[in-house]
Amino acid sequence: MIYIVGIGPGDREFLTLKALKIVENADLIVGSKRALELFNIDKNKKITLSKNLIEELKNILKNENIKNKKIAILSTGDPCFSGLLKTLLKIGVSEKDIEVIPGISSVQIAAARLKISWEDYNIITLHGKEENLKNLLNLLKKKEKVIFLPNDLKKDVKYLIENGIDPNTKIWVLENITYPNEKISLKSLKDITKENFSYLTVCIYRGEDD
Amino acid sequence: MIYIVGIGPGDREFLTLKALKIVENADLIVGSKRALELFNIDKNKKITLSKNLIEELKNILKNENIKNKKIAILSTGDPCFSGLLKTLLKIGVSEKDIEVIPGISSVQIAAARLKISWEDYNIITLHGKEENLKNLLNLLKKKEKVIFLPNDLKKDVKYLIENGIDPNTKIWVLENITYPNEKISLKSLKDITKENFSYLTVCIYRGEDD
Ligand SMILES: C[S@@+](CC[C@H](N)C(=O)[O-])C[C@H]1O[C@@H](n2cnc3c(N)ncnc32)[C@H](O)[C@@H]1O
Ligand SMILES: C[S@@+](CC[C@H](N)C(=O)[O-])C[C@H]1O[C@@H](n2cnc3c(N)ncnc32)[C@H](O)[C@@H]1O
Repeated sequence: MIYIVGIGPGDREFLTLKALKIVENADLIVGSKRALELFNIDKNKKITLSKNLIEELKNILKNENIKNKKIAILSTGDPCFSGLLKTLLKIGVSEKDIEVIPGISSVQIAAARLKISWEDYNIITLHGKEENLKNLLNLLKKKEKVIFLPNDLKKDVKYLIENGIDPNTKIWVLENITYPNEKISLKSLKDITKENFSYLTVCIYRGEDD
Repeated sequence: MIYIVGIGPGDREFLTLKALKIVENADLIVGSKRALELFNIDKNKKITLSKNLIEELKNILKNENIKNKKIAILSTGDPCFSGLLKTLLKIGVSEKDIEVIPGISSVQIAAARLKISWEDYNIITLHGKEENLKNLLNLLKKKEKVIFLPNDLKKDVKYLIENGIDPNTKIWVLENITYPNEKISLKSLKDITKENFSYLTVCIYRGEDD
């Protein structure tokens, strides 16, 4: 059985009891260095993933007897939001061999920080999905509320400006949420094109002049 | 300070370490019977909410010195999704007095059960928001993927059929997720109008013929 375990936004406190239990009882735990560090795991029970995620996962799953072992794969945030569930299904893992343990998504912790309700927002991930930039553009044109995960924030914002969004439009930029270097700021699109941002960033447009 | 604490879908295992810690350190814990039972709380530290939620919350917050006490208010699922955050802001609690602790939403656990990614879905709550029925209708007409929280499932579905959705359309009905009486079934709209469902239900239309 493969357990895809959501680990939340980063701080250990956002782990669920269920995530802790699944990892404790797993025969093998696979994850990024950052993810593995959240748990107390025997050295010989863990495999650290590097950048070649998909190839590495394929190899591990090819070599393991999935049916008879408990394999925990750690996933940032919620595995069902722009997460590892999709990746695993794409590389051919059968739904029947998977159990998903939800985790707190970056979308949720961002909403919690700004004290907004995400049922009122359009939610878009540009992460590896550049085709969604067009949808984002259309929503901003209509001044609709959006929470989005950028792909490359500076580039994404340049596209928005080049396609007619007012460079003075302000959006909230939430970086490294729950980490010691968490930073939340309200910035104009114009300013965003001049700065650098963390890979861990969620953006929120409140659909009003902030 | 008021901590709005997400308690997840119901099973204790989906609590976060943070939720446990906040409740442990709070001076006063307010919640439904079901929510309070998930924690180990001194009798004289808890207040059980009944049906008149809003009035009761107003009274409690009027009588407490919010600034100097730590008050934890327990919220089903994620407080930022069709949850208590909105209620508290509506009754005039200041954003500055609130900290939100996200929890696993019923939307997430439903997605985890069906092994779908919710960034691909429209998410709609009809819960106390009947005006959203029209949006749901339009999405179903276009055969778009939707996760929705019903208001009154039988009534909602009757409206959909009366307004032109094929009664043979099938949707997933997920009841009491994570509870011992959890039930997941694929049902036609026609059949839904003939049965009764739990108050705790999430519905999913996969936008395809299931
Ligand atoms: C591959 S996606 C995974 C999303 C994840 N499944 C979730 O539910 O949050 C990675 C993106 O998530 C967002 N992210 C994850 N953790 C974050 C954090 N602590 N602070 C800000 N953004 C975060 C960033 O946008 C990052 O580029
Ligand atoms: C007032 S809303 C609160 C939603 C909550 N904040 C969340 O994030 O799930 C209550 C609705 O949530 C859904 N819900 C909550 N817990 C559930 C569960 N364990 N199983 C199915 N649906 C649930 C049902 O649709 C219910 O009518």
